[in-house]
Amino acid sequence: MTEKIAPSILAADFAALGSEIKEAEAAGADYIHIDVMDGRFVPNITIGPLIVEAVRPHTSLPLDVHLMIENPERYVDAFADAGADIISVHAEACPHLHRTIQQIKGRGVKAGAVLNPGSPLSMVEEVMDELDLLLLMTVNPGFGGQTFIPSVLDKMKRASEIKPAAMEIEVDGGVNADTAKLCREAGADVLVAGSAFFQASDRKQAMKSLRS
Amino acid sequence: MTEKIAPSILAADFAALGSEIKEAEAAGADYIHIDVMDGRFVPNITIGPLIVEAVRPHTSLPLDVHLMIENPERYVDAFADAGADIISVHAEACPHLHRTIQQIKGRGVKAGAVLNPGSPLSMVEEVMDELDLLLLMTVNPGFGGQTFIPSVLDKMKRASEIKPAAMEIEVDGGVNADTAKLCREAGADVLVAGSAFFQASDRKQAMKSLRS
Amino acid sequence: MTEKIAPSILAADFAALGSEIKEAEAAGADYIHIDVMDGRFVPNITIGPLIVEAVRPHTSLPLDVHLMIENPERYVDAFADAGADIISVHAEACPHLHRTIQQIKGRGVKAGAVLNPGSPLSMVEEVMDELDLLLLMTVNPGFGGQTFIPSVLDKMKRASEIKPAAMEIEVDGGVNADTAKLCREAGADVLVAGSAFFQASDRKQAMKSLRS
Amino acid sequence: MTEKIAPSILAADFAALGSEIKEAEAAGADYIHIDVMDGRFVPNITIGPLIVEAVRPHTSLPLDVHLMIENPERYVDAFADAGADIISVHAEACPHLHRTIQQIKGRGVKAGAVLNPGSPLSMVEEVMDELDLLLLMTVNPGFGGQTFIPSVLDKMKRASEIKPAAMEIEVDGGVNADTAKLCREAGADVLVAGSAFFQASDRKQAMKSLRS
Amino acid sequence: MTEKIAPSILAADFAALGSEIKEAEAAGADYIHIDVMDGRFVPNITIGPLIVEAVRPHTSLPLDVHLMIENPERYVDAFADAGADIISVHAEACPHLHRTIQQIKGRGVKAGAVLNPGSPLSMVEEVMDELDLLLLMTVNPGFGGQTFIPSVLDKMKRASEIKPAAMEIEVDGGVNADTAKLCREAGADVLVAGSAFFQASDRKQAMKSLRS
Amino acid sequence: MTEKIAPSILAADFAALGSEIKEAEAAGADYIHIDVMDGRFVPNITIGPLIVEAVRPHTSLPLDVHLMIENPERYVDAFADAGADIISVHAEACPHLHRTIQQIKGRGVKAGAVLNPGSPLSMVEEVMDELDLLLLMTVNPGFGGQTFIPSVLDKMKRASEIKPAAMEIEVDGGVNADTAKLCREAGADVLVAGSAFFQASDRKQAMKSLRS
Repeated sequence: MTEKIAPSILAADFAALGSEIKEAEAAGADYIHIDVMDGRFVPNITIGPLIVEAVRPHTSLPLDVHLMIENPERYVDAFADAGADIISVHAEACPHLHRTIQQIKGRGVKAGAVLNPGSPLSMVEEVMDELDLLLLMTVNPGFGGQTFIPSVLDKMKRASEIKPAAMEIEVDGGVNADTAKLCREAGADVLVAGSAFFQASDRKQAMKSLRS
Repeated sequence: MTEKIAPSILAADFAALGSEIKEAEAAGADYIHIDVMDGRFVPNITIGPLIVEAVRPHTSLPLDVHLMIENPERYVDAFADAGADIISVHAEACPHLHRTIQQIKGRGVKAGAVLNPGSPLSMVEEVMDELDLLLLMTVNPGFGGQTFIPSVLDKMKRASEIKPAAMEIEVDGGVNADTAKLCREAGADVLVAGSAFFQASDRKQAMKSLRS
Repeated sequence: MTEKIAPSILAADFAALGSEIKEAEAAGADYIHIDVMDGRFVPNITIGPLIVEAVRPHTSLPLDVHLMIENPERYVDAFADAGADIISVHAEACPHLHRTIQQIKGRGVKAGAVLNPGSPLSMVEEVMDELDLLLLMTVNPGFGGQTFIPSVLDKMKRASEIKPAAMEIEVDGGVNADTAKLCREAGADVLVAGSAFFQASDRKQAMKSLRS
Repeated sequence: MTEKIAPSILAADFAALGSEIKEAEAAGADYIHIDVMDGRFVPNITIGPLIVEAVRPHTSLPLDVHLMIENPERYVDAFADAGADIISVHAEACPHLHRTIQQIKGRGVKAGAVLNPGSPLSMVEEVMDELDLLLLMTVNPGFGGQTFIPSVLDKMKRASEIKPAAMEIEVDGGVNADTAKLCREAGADVLVAGSAFFQASDRKQAMKSLRS
Repeated sequence: MTEKIAPSILAADFAALGSEIKEAEAAGADYIHIDVMDGRFVPNITIGPLIVEAVRPHTSLPLDVHLMIENPERYVDAFADAGADIISVHAEACPHLHRTIQQIKGRGVKAGAVLNPGSPLSMVEEVMDELDLLLLMTVNPGFGGQTFIPSVLDKMKRASEIKPAAMEIEVDGGVNADTAKLCREAGADVLVAGSAFFQASDRKQAMKSLRS
Repeated sequence: MTEKIAPSILAADFAALGSEIKEAEAAGADYIHIDVMDGRFVPNITIGPLIVEAVRPHTSLPLDVHLMIENPERYVDAFADAGADIISVHAEACPHLHRTIQQIKGRGVKAGAVLNPGSPLSMVEEVMDELDLLLLMTVNPGFGGQTFIPSVLDKMKRASEIKPAAMEIEVDGGVNADTAKLCREAGADVLVAGSAFFQASDRKQAMKSLRS
């Protein structure tokens, strides 16, 4: 089984999102990754449900929404209504993580938990059986264009050894052709690619490089 | 002097923002109004600096950025860097309103203060001489498509009677051909139009209706 | 027209609320006043919607719910569902005061705004026409059994001079036979009585003393 | 040794708390469980110290107070003064968990720590020797009447294997005759029963079913 | 009557506070002004009660403590215990301003309210009769060494016209020989001097310049 | 190798910090430990960057700054600019712990993480390779003069067994001649001494007692 590629619209042209997403789909993307930031959990504000709703008609790919926000439970309904297929929330932002995961699944949406580079796996050990996705950050979230943190590869391996079969491990941050290989070997199932895809001169070729 | 019209991109197609904004400029818009929400000051998350930066090359009109966010002082630099020409902050969100206005002007950007429908004019009386813009909300901020609150017209009249000559009074919320007339009579200088412009079948005609 | 009396359950026996409220009704109470505190807006936690729901079947009097809580908009639905007839929110806790009042009225419930002793009337001047009730605190909220602050009488007079005919002025804090008289003269329409009613040896007599 | 039963007043009639609690004592209850919510740590407001104080004279059973609130250290004194015998705080709400436990014990009150269903045991590993009670939530806290989460049974077993002899393991959420048996087998010492006790047609019979 | 001078230790040498304060007293200072910042109300952390306690034995002058902090009611006791003679709190930080003032006076300490440059006088109109001091900021608080904002002079005049006889008007920010004169004419009773005193080559001469 | 001693200025005379620090250096101190509290993460406000800057010229010893504050990332630059050599942040206050450590090191300053007595080692397991210092609290932070918590010795031993060679283990709270010995045996590299040093009648002798 080969891993999936999820281009992140954080690196796309926000003035032409519809066509950017269509191009990602044409290049063979598996998911469209959408980074939501509120200026509280991370020091940046990006986009919200209206943008998810706007891009929904432009692709049939799963919309993979990564909530880098405080109190994400307040926004699960809005993103589900907007057309999200996967909603992931940060364990660091969820004192009631089990409840928030149930809330997402109760909307018929796949549920993910996210761990920052410095966060231990034990934060999700009691909910792992409930997860569709475990997103391991390989940069500190908040901005695009950062460098891959190799020490997370070890956490990735440990996660892949104990994970339920149905749960995908997704990796986000500094993924390019080189680091993609390392992640694949460490057990990653889904690779988020930002500038490595959208800023590439040849996006189809970039997609191939990420996969091989 | 006729009033200015500022189409709000909250009602535009977010999948094609570049072309939407060009169309607004072609239709005779004076400002492009950009609604930033953080899910804290208002119960919705919309867009942040990256989107402002993305649309900046698509128009030469002033980008009129309305920050419906807590602690807006943390984001003034990011929006100025992204290309904002006017930045407005809510008096209700600024215990240090004078400082935030100076911070905006210190970046070479025009500074506005915003009042919710229930907020008294006294909240801005000590800073009015410093303002380039006073934005009076005629709906409660947070969502598009709400109904104009006519009781704000009286506050608009009182503001227009005491305002410095150089300060523009802007009105945002439920503006259509009918309410535009009332605002004009009450002293408004700039009218924000959301669905009345972007959802109109004929946008050029809609612009004319708002002006006449 | 005589003023109304609203016994506050904060001074009642919480182990037998149903019978306490029935006794208040039998003694001639006009409203049942219910003090909700969240430990954030005020430094005390009292009761929530479940208690309102529990006492609802025990009286046909209007339940007059005073929310001493932050972000009261998050609880309007719960208290309306529980059977509240009047819901009042603090102006100091509502940057979007107009919206919260509309939200309450949208539930078919009467809406009130509350001002702390130190808060100026200007905080409600733009919403006064929307209010069913203006509650002027004559103690600082958070605890029962405090002493009446006489300087609020002047604010009460000023409020009664400019208030819409349909809006009632309610007074809460340190009301007894003596201060009730002062409030009546200053224009109060509804008097909240805590220990002056529930701690009285003869509650029917206490009610008479408050009225005369 | 048989386990203890702690009826939760969240499911009792709040209009007649005194008699409800007497009935629980008569039916053989071991503790009276009291759920305090502040609308911040959980999305509901229930009751505070005044209610604990009001019910105190109506029973000689230990009052087992479960604080589902932020910054519980601000309320330890108030609940101790009101007559609490056990005070439990959420590990998720206590960056200074050791200090809060010492604060409770310094008042001569038994101290408990609580873990949400999604929280790992490691959150309490450094304080377990200080605890009188470890409360494992088998529903997500905030509301009554939810369904038992069976995956917590495994955490219960692990806790019972490493716990100090003097520490009781309490279970709260969805406990009925069936799930009580599972909890007993997994090492629980105290079972909180809400609607399974207070909503039963025959409360004495309900108590027996929970025990057998 | 001549105005008082209150040197602010924010501009003193923090490595030798005891001798700095003695020198200020010797130079004829009337108050010692102490600026407390928490990094929340203003973006800087300065000093707390321990420092007040440490300098207390080094002077017999009144210690005039200006709290630029959120929830100042949590620290009134600590500063009173440390030896403060005057404690001033920001109206913008006090939804319960009347209560906080009473709390300060209840400790036998003089109570002040502070207004930022952008804040209207109406924020203190209901408590003015309770105040010993009204501190009008002539810079935005948070840092030393800023420039005097002349538009506050008008607010100073309006305040001096309506103030109770016993209440002093204090001015803080950018005060030097030139601006001191303007403040005196506008009705100021106490002038806070930072770098104009402590950074002066001849501090006694600086004191004279501020007075004349 | 003998352990280092870091006198904490929290126990020094704040009216004469410069000479206090010189005396600590003369007595053989290895680091000067500086306790920063914001009144949020801990219930006390102590000192900020200005004080660090003021004492910097009075010693050539490393300034070891312990931030007991929320959102420490907002203050890293200020303390680095002020002359800090080591900056430590609480794991409990850092959802983005890896990022904050990188931020500190990016300023050319040594980076530490701090654990409260009740916090498990797993909170830092993913960042331990990045740390210059791991500070284990042996009292609950917030005040000086507390008693050593012996149960932390076991965590100290476990940390010393897995720590990278370059990382120092520092201990803070209740350290005196007796507890210093226990910490040394448990693997501590740096001992913070407050009153045991600064309140000693013979400081040089006190330093010797801590070491032997």
